[in-house]
Amino acid sequence: MELYYAVPGLGAVLHTVNIRYSPEDLVYTINHAGDEILFVKDEFVPLVSAIMPKLKTVRKAVIMTDRPEPPQVKLPGIEVYNYEDLIKSSSPYEFGDLDERTVATLFYTSGTTGPPKGVFFTHRQLVLHAMAVAISTSAPPYELSVRDIVMPLVPMYHVHAWGGGPHAMFLAGQKYVFTGRMDWGGYILKTISEEKVTYIYGVPVILYLLLTHPDSPKYDLRGGLKYGNGGSAMPEGLYKLARSRGGIIVINGYGLSETAPVIAQALFNASMLGWPDEKKENYLMKGLRQIPLAFIRVVNDQGKDVPKDGKTIGEIVVRSPWLTPAYFKDPEKTRDLWRGGWLHTGDVAVWDSEGHIWIMDRLKDVIKSGGEWIVSTKLEDIISTYPAVGEVAVVGVPHPKWGGERPVAIVVPKPGQRITEDEIKNHLMKYVEKGEIPKWWLPDKIIISEKELPKTSTAKADKKVLRELYKNVLSS
Amino acid sequence: MELYYAVPGLGAVLHTVNIRYSPEDLVYTINHAGDEILFVKDEFVPLVSAIMPKLKTVRKAVIMTDRPEPPQVKLPGIEVYNYEDLIKSSSPYEFGDLDERTVATLFYTSGTTGPPKGVFFTHRQLVLHAMAVAISTSAPPYELSVRDIVMPLVPMYHVHAWGGGPHAMFLAGQKYVFTGRMDWGGYILKTISEEKVTYIYGVPVILYLLLTHPDSPKYDLRGGLKYGNGGSAMPEGLYKLARSRGGIIVINGYGLSETAPVIAQALFNASMLGWPDEKKENYLMKGLRQIPLAFIRVVNDQGKDVPKDGKTIGEIVVRSPWLTPAYFKDPEKTRDLWRGGWLHTGDVAVWDSEGHIWIMDRLKDVIKSGGEWIVSTKLEDIISTYPAVGEVAVVGVPHPKWGGERPVAIVVPKPGQRITEDEIKNHLMKYVEKGEIPKWWLPDKIIISEKELPKTSTAKADKKVLRELYKNVLSS
Repeated sequence: MELYYAVPGLGAVLHTVNIRYSPEDLVYTINHAGDEILFVKDEFVPLVSAIMPKLKTVRKAVIMTDRPEPPQVKLPGIEVYNYEDLIKSSSPYEFGDLDERTVATLFYTSGTTGPPKGVFFTHRQLVLHAMAVAISTSAPPYELSVRDIVMPLVPMYHVHAWGGGPHAMFLAGQKYVFTGRMDWGGYILKTISEEKVTYIYGVPVILYLLLTHPDSPKYDLRGGLKYGNGGSAMPEGLYKLARSRGGIIVINGYGLSETAPVIAQALFNASMLGWPDEKKENYLMKGLRQIPLAFIRVVNDQGKDVPKDGKTIGEIVVRSPWLTPAYFKDPEKTRDLWRGGWLHTGDVAVWDSEGHIWIMDRLKDVIKSGGEWIVSTKLEDIISTYPAVGEVAVVGVPHPKWGGERPVAIVVPKPGQRITEDEIKNHLMKYVEKGEIPKWWLPDKIIISEKELPKTSTAKADKKVLRELYKNVLSS
Repeated sequence: MELYYAVPGLGAVLHTVNIRYSPEDLVYTINHAGDEILFVKDEFVPLVSAIMPKLKTVRKAVIMTDRPEPPQVKLPGIEVYNYEDLIKSSSPYEFGDLDERTVATLFYTSGTTGPPKGVFFTHRQLVLHAMAVAISTSAPPYELSVRDIVMPLVPMYHVHAWGGGPHAMFLAGQKYVFTGRMDWGGYILKTISEEKVTYIYGVPVILYLLLTHPDSPKYDLRGGLKYGNGGSAMPEGLYKLARSRGGIIVINGYGLSETAPVIAQALFNASMLGWPDEKKENYLMKGLRQIPLAFIRVVNDQGKDVPKDGKTIGEIVVRSPWLTPAYFKDPEKTRDLWRGGWLHTGDVAVWDSEGHIWIMDRLKDVIKSGGEWIVSTKLEDIISTYPAVGEVAVVGVPHPKWGGERPVAIVVPKPGQRITEDEIKNHLMKYVEKGEIPKWWLPDKIIISEKELPKTSTAKADKKVLRELYKNVLSS
């Protein structure tokens, strides 16, 4: 947290390295960014030692530790300092004025193809993003105030810890509780309960782990605890589990690494407060409104707005003062991101007559079958409501006869439970009969897996891996 | 309100003309601004007709009316349109993108000497100001949300109606109730009650008029109604009157025409919520914290910070992204305003160890007596707590023997009440005995006046006029 403010405050760029990357990607991103000084938590010293020979621009390292005595660390060819020694020996420093367009932060985001891409943000962008998030999270359903106690459940290297914590919550004067290591039973559940945390946020799997951890029932997750969801869509089953567990209020949010990240949330204006409960719940789970200074459209292939009918699918494109101006040193991918002067999110959605946005899927995860689109997340939602289902992913797999893709569902039962393919099929058929999904959307195969789904570094189901894993499943 | 958004949205500058200016100052400001199109409410047509020959740059006028039929207006030498006709005949207009540094608004502020001075603000500045005010007014003690109903009691020509209403409250999604004409009994009190207004704001005299209007007791000013105070210090007597009247929560705020206006408010952070009631009340009445992105210092004649001791008086200077860059076409006054790179407010204050700011007086109203300063507002405060006192002003008047100035108090009794000079003297002596003011601060003369105090165009006691009126009172 100190580095979050101190490094940009100096006029330097804070590159938050994704520690879940492979050593190869770590080396790539550090070299690509041109990092000069590494701040290294002591537990990562062996990792840094191992990759050090491949790092081209690093000339100093500063070791950070929670232990009372700083470790004696040597790294080949560079100067090594201990963070606490530097703090103790330093004199007061007067931060100077910086041009607001000075780059403050840089980090990398993994795409479906190629190496990680760098996105970067200026001081101006971080301030505007923090202000907009402070305003939006003061509105219902968040209604955060100086009385709130916030515990972000996203790593600090990940998109400014979503900006909410280190920037907006500080601006709005909320108490901030650190997560430390993601230790569910021993620390996080206990701390939420003991510190009377009122607002947590993270990706859906985080909420799932929190609610299903063996120690979870021991802790008081008071009614009124709010959970801000992002990263991927909230499965309906998980939403219901959270509601049943002490009435946790789940609030949908939306953004990308490229968007700093927040651009939309399930915000309520005054008139929406009068909505029927069911409509409100559905909106909290899946709905979105743009936050102040974010301008969102849903467009077709030609960049024209799709009708605001709640049905016609298009891609979400954005303008806002805090979007990354480019992929770092990658003009080609930058052009693609910003084609037509709008940032292309790669997410498909519908919008309705009130301008609310309902995300359907990642453009790349939409399953193209017979010239039409199947929305994989819709199928995942339905499957997730089947009681014994723990995790589910639906991916498009090449069909040997028809060409194109057909959906395949991978289902992981809850611990200690069993599910059959037929149970899931019958469950889905009910939704076909109710007219909620067309019959041709039904997965060609349902795979019951005992193994946890593979995850991306941001804890989403890794559909790229799943597509590769099951690419021949319809051929065999 | 339409013009507030439409005119800057076009890329034009909205000059909100101060209709309480003398015809001479109206002509001066319109010519100095170079206004080309006048929007004129029908009731002001005779006024505009009268000054029209002196207006050098106006080429069109648009007449606005609340009447069903637009009036037939002719003005010499210019084209005249009716607003509603233009609205009806216009086709949809797509607002284009503007450079954020485009000037959006301009208005004039009266100084102690010379003609009114123009201040101006860009789109960027209005947006940042609105965002900062939206954040600060979501914090305690305001805690405004989409559930709130706001009725600004400041004219719309006056410093963006303080920015809170037309900009920040819209941004934050609050319901906005128009004041129309300042008709206390017939409209404003009635509307506050009927529309269940939860937040009003204005200068102290407005609250005084509201609470003492003969019709006032008829209306329900519910507990929890919040009143944002600005323009001048809240007199303690008025504060207590408001608290006794259904528990109206008075909240101190601070800003100038030059500062868009808001830069500080009596905001509470989490730890301050635990303050004892008396400390809280005193802070609400007189205390201030800077709002986000406003940086305030209290400095001596050499521009150095005065000690944060709650005692040493200095001038408030500010930096913030929304301060007027200059007085329009007045480089000399601009240099004085911005000397040393900080905007000089002309207000004297102390700050305390927590950085809270307590305004003492206008620099020009501070009474310089024998090389020391007497804070006129402190004397006004004490006198205002005497039950029969309606209005009070204390000004510095030249002393024939000692040179320098000595304080003179002008006291207006409440309607139907009588006060003597001795009563006020005895009342002040109690505060001398308690050690709250030094004995040499006691006014040399107390004038009991049956006439309302002269007011500036922003409804503050006009001390310039009072000083002139009573300049010989100590010589006679």
